[in-house]
Amino acid sequence: MKYPAKEHALRVKNHFLAKKESVKKDATAFFIASAKYTNYPYCDQVAPLRQNRYFHYLSGIDQIAGAFVLFNVFNDKLTLFLPNIDEDDIMWSGMPLSPEDALKDYDFDEVLYAKDVAKTLKSLKSTNFDIYTTDTDEYAETAFAKLVIANDASFFYALDESRLIKDEYEISLMRHAAKITDNCHMAVMSALPIETNETHLHAEFVYHSLRQGSKFLSYDPICCSGPSCGTLHYIKNDDEMDGKTSVLIDAGAEWKCYASDVTRCFPITGKFSKEHLDVYETVRDMQAQAMKKIKPGVEWEDLHLLTHRVLIKHFLELGLFQNGTEEEIFDSKVSAWFYPHGLGHMLGMDTHDVGGHANYEDENIMLRYLRIRRKLEAGMVVTNEPGVYFSPFLLEHISKEQEKFVNKELVEKYMYVGGVRIEDDILVTPDGHENLTGITSDPYEIEKIVQKGLSKGKGGFHVIV
Amino acid sequence: MKYPAKEHALRVKNHFLAKKESVKKDATAFFIASAKYTNYPYCDQVAPLRQNRYFHYLSGIDQIAGAFVLFNVFNDKLTLFLPNIDEDDIMWSGMPLSPEDALKDYDFDEVLYAKDVAKTLKSLKSTNFDIYTTDTDEYAETAFAKLVIANDASFFYALDESRLIKDEYEISLMRHAAKITDNCHMAVMSALPIETNETHLHAEFVYHSLRQGSKFLSYDPICCSGPSCGTLHYIKNDDEMDGKTSVLIDAGAEWKCYASDVTRCFPITGKFSKEHLDVYETVRDMQAQAMKKIKPGVEWEDLHLLTHRVLIKHFLELGLFQNGTEEEIFDSKVSAWFYPHGLGHMLGMDTHDVGGHANYEDENIMLRYLRIRRKLEAGMVVTNEPGVYFSPFLLEHISKEQEKFVNKELVEKYMYVGGVRIEDDILVTPDGHENLTGITSDPYEIEKIVQKGLSKGKGGFHVIV
Repeated sequence: MKYPAKEHALRVKNHFLAKKESVKKDATAFFIASAKYTNYPYCDQVAPLRQNRYFHYLSGIDQIAGAFVLFNVFNDKLTLFLPNIDEDDIMWSGMPLSPEDALKDYDFDEVLYAKDVAKTLKSLKSTNFDIYTTDTDEYAETAFAKLVIANDASFFYALDESRLIKDEYEISLMRHAAKITDNCHMAVMSALPIETNETHLHAEFVYHSLRQGSKFLSYDPICCSGPSCGTLHYIKNDDEMDGKTSVLIDAGAEWKCYASDVTRCFPITGKFSKEHLDVYETVRDMQAQAMKKIKPGVEWEDLHLLTHRVLIKHFLELGLFQNGTEEEIFDSKVSAWFYPHGLGHMLGMDTHDVGGHANYEDENIMLRYLRIRRKLEAGMVVTNEPGVYFSPFLLEHISKEQEKFVNKELVEKYMYVGGVRIEDDILVTPDGHENLTGITSDPYEIEKIVQKGLSKGKGGFHVIV
Repeated sequence: MKYPAKEHALRVKNHFLAKKESVKKDATAFFIASAKYTNYPYCDQVAPLRQNRYFHYLSGIDQIAGAFVLFNVFNDKLTLFLPNIDEDDIMWSGMPLSPEDALKDYDFDEVLYAKDVAKTLKSLKSTNFDIYTTDTDEYAETAFAKLVIANDASFFYALDESRLIKDEYEISLMRHAAKITDNCHMAVMSALPIETNETHLHAEFVYHSLRQGSKFLSYDPICCSGPSCGTLHYIKNDDEMDGKTSVLIDAGAEWKCYASDVTRCFPITGKFSKEHLDVYETVRDMQAQAMKKIKPGVEWEDLHLLTHRVLIKHFLELGLFQNGTEEEIFDSKVSAWFYPHGLGHMLGMDTHDVGGHANYEDENIMLRYLRIRRKLEAGMVVTNEPGVYFSPFLLEHISKEQEKFVNKELVEKYMYVGGVRIEDDILVTPDGHENLTGITSDPYEIEKIVQKGLSKGKGGFHVIV
């Protein structure tokens, strides 16, 4: 089965025609350029190519630079323009994708070369077509850059609303990404005898991801231990783990441009400490309570705020919060300094995928960083990823009005844990949801996996250093 | 010991003052911006930061964006401007490098913040300073971009001539990079029971590199098997290895912004086939003959042409070349279609480092791709990397005049080997040279390593898939 590029183009068409005022139904086209190679400054080395997601959505093509895709809204014709052939390049790199293979392997009606773009667009313009594009950044210097309409809000709306709802083919790619990621997390949890520095966690994850054919992770992995688990965007990943209790690893493999994004936490000794387990069970309950309610029609914001309430309940039981009712504490917003981020985000070709409608200007600190501000619909894929952190950089934001609710002395005893986040990738289905993430988050099963790994010792693994 | 940023600035100063006409010795400064973070288009994900090499040379700072370095040529003062503090960012990412730690850990006389750049540069301009920079790409929109002189040929000359000759500190970093790379190649050669696809070679290399603390490879690794060993820039790295004979892996770890670059070839079965060994011994002799002559004062071009002569001798003995003397065949340039690239390149912060003075317009095909066109000097680090390839994309360039020298029938029998390249990193010393690469290239030792790995079977390794 082919990547359904034509189906995607038709979705974009439908959204666009419905949204755009006074559109020319018989003379509209979409045109998008692929990413292009860029050299690092002052040297001949190219940066890794990350395919333009909009181009990929209408083509299914990864790792080809200098290509273009054109969709004619009048006759539904989808055309790929391959990069021009560079004879010298064949000598060094072998044969590029041929038009014949492109027609066979992908979902195009026609395959031309980049040199054909100018005359093709000119011909459309001569019959009064409006040719919409995202931007002309990759070809600003060409004459045909003047033939297209860039930055049209309705075009972006149509692209994003289309990408938001994943079709079966996309879901199958995301399932595969999730499966690779399951195996990677399993490997990381199982390899503690050879993981004495955070970089070893990172290495283990990347190794198993690459072995399964995933060349790129979806994002820079976060591999922390001990207090650094409280630093949300920790990407140094280079500290010694000796003497620490907790590990948090937030990492996901990418499969054919589709992301996975999973966080797991585990105890370095194979046994959760009291405080680590307290935090773990709090987060697990937050995730579970939200999970139960994931289905079409639900406001994501409501689930996010629900997880704050679950946190507050647990913190009151643990004695970490005090001197107030659940409602008073909720209203004070103090929980935001233990759980500063949102419950989750859209997931797709981008890790923080399009269409979430975040409002980073929101005055409410509990909602400012929430990346989904709309009702759930079947076909969306979202992350469900509550977290609880004990970070000095967060706690210093606690205001005079909020501090009476916080048992500072007890909080001190939790600081060594750093934080816990549990993150799964969830497909919204017509009836509810499906968890694409398979790796367990049950703390007792996790203990067993870690213990099994520890019992094997260093001999079980392939280590040079 | 600190990265010798001040020493580097003084070298640049000396080269600049010697080169630049009518320079103001008492009113000249150098100013360079660090790399900055860039988001991938239409999403909030940043691309990996590759530090600007010129900035790094004058600072020693990696993985910090939005910084600047200033060197006052009059009083030899070296100033770092740290990125401005973003309070929000501390909440998410923790504390950035402080001025106190920057002074302690690095080689600066003064540490300020980016917000201080404008007034510092204005103050210099007010006393009639000329402030040279590479470019203003990272801050074109600022007012202070107008205060600097960009793209001055003498400034680039001074930077490149300085970078060209590595000091002891740089050599120690390159030794460490080379050592990591040795271990990685050893791991790849040892793991054949779990390497059935080229991506497994890639994974093994990356794994051991990351485990040793190297976050980035110097360049996209080339992991080929069988005929694809003849594709010089093969980076697909995703083919099955079953039924093939040869592996070629060209990969190197980076250590604190310094590169290593090593190629090794080995037989998948643990035993070189006749043809594979014929090619291997040819290349090994090419490398050895060149190696013997590496010392200050030698023209690199002469060594390159020498390796062509060695190739021709071996090919005549093997019967691959015919109907001509060594001289006639050399003059015909037919060897370029079996050995199309140069003998080596400068190595440093960039894999193809600065100062080589390549001439890609050279009419002589044997020299066009040679990346060093100057005499060797002590302190240069170069790669010694001859190769011999059997590639249909190369052989189709053989001209009517050249084809009589080639025994096509016999060449056909070598096509399955693809190619062999042997690449080591060589420091030019006052008396000769030192090979920074430690991993063996002796074919019989390589066979032993591969066989030892094969004898362990899959059980010896940590494999999930």
